[in-house]
Amino acid sequence: MKTVLIYSGGMDSTTLLYDLINKGDEVLCLLVDYNQRHSTELDHAERQCNKLRIEYTRIHLPNTKVLMQGSSQTDKSVKVPEGNYDEPTMKATVVPNRNMILLALAGAYAVSVKADRLAYGAHAGDHTIYPDCRPEFVEAMSKAFTLCDWHTLDLYVPYLHLTKGEICKIGLKLGVPYGATYTCYKGYFKPCGKCGACMERAEAFAFAGEVDPSCK
Amino acid sequence: MKTVLIYSGGMDSTTLLYDLINKGDEVLCLLVDYNQRHSTELDHAERQCNKLRIEYTRIHLPNTKVLMQGSSQTDKSVKVPEGNYDEPTMKATVVPNRNMILLALAGAYAVSVKADRLAYGAHAGDHTIYPDCRPEFVEAMSKAFTLCDWHTLDLYVPYLHLTKGEICKIGLKLGVPYGATYTCYKGYFKPCGKCGACMERAEAFAFAGEVDPSCK
Repeated sequence: MKTVLIYSGGMDSTTLLYDLINKGDEVLCLLVDYNQRHSTELDHAERQCNKLRIEYTRIHLPNTKVLMQGSSQTDKSVKVPEGNYDEPTMKATVVPNRNMILLALAGAYAVSVKADRLAYGAHAGDHTIYPDCRPEFVEAMSKAFTLCDWHTLDLYVPYLHLTKGEICKIGLKLGVPYGATYTCYKGYFKPCGKCGACMERAEAFAFAGEVDPSCK
Repeated sequence: MKTVLIYSGGMDSTTLLYDLINKGDEVLCLLVDYNQRHSTELDHAERQCNKLRIEYTRIHLPNTKVLMQGSSQTDKSVKVPEGNYDEPTMKATVVPNRNMILLALAGAYAVSVKADRLAYGAHAGDHTIYPDCRPEFVEAMSKAFTLCDWHTLDLYVPYLHLTKGEICKIGLKLGVPYGATYTCYKGYFKPCGKCGACMERAEAFAFAGEVDPSCK
């Protein structure tokens, strides 16, 4: 099966990459730089693709300050909140319509290369904060993907109902090199350990009963 | 009402622009250069926005050859077909997932500026050739737009069941300066008159009982 993966270089999409390869899929990755504060994640994604000899395309969206205003992740004047992932302050990290843009671009890639499906790593931990990670949103986009082209495209979101801890367990079994993935929202070379993304990562490893190799 | 319009500079979206202004909407336009062969349409859109003092943003998508392969409109090696709009050869003009990309970007813009709705000019004449102009696709995207953000966005596609001729009649009543709109798929300074887009435009004016000012 030919699959296009939206690949950020974080834990979830890296696990999905290994998962797809393990299933025998031919995987092509799309890496999107939307001028995110933590775009260093994409360098991690690139290194992973090169290591695994996976075909990938990295694109840089222009002028997104106009399109994606007001988020701590795209607007330097908005501070990255600290604390748990499910706190209301974390809503500052929502990038307007980010996932629809990523899906639409990856969909064009998938249609262009006649892929069977389009994979992305949204998961249950995201639902409280990110409207565009909710199952209802994924369902609407799935429907749109059956209609956007004469070539039908299947939207594959296997972790939609899993927590990050459960994904981490899958990844550990698959041998995902988590030390080579990047999560921190502040985009520091050394993760801050205080933002919601760092805290959720720590909780995932605690759930899986492992030490995060990035912290060793 | 605050409305973001996907504005190409062609007949349909220009009519919609005048229609929205006539309704009293505060309109903001998004012009997307996806490296289309006929990107000159966007220069027409810019001129129109400047004339009407409408706020607009023009963005240029990168690297789209990888994302939008195989269409005569984005790939110079594919010839623009000539003949009627509903002929199978016209399918060469379909740009993979184009409308979802335009909608997603305009959706991000609309969410960022807290617009009430997002308008685009898909119409009934497009349904045979363009999968992403069909009512079912628009319906799925409408659903997605109610879910993509905590701020609900209404997708407004008022010409979805009208022909280009019917849109032309509306525009003539509104005083749309059609001589300042651009349609030709070949992107020539002087429209070719032979591609499907030019032929459909001619039919629209014939239906409305008027002479196209571009041909005077």
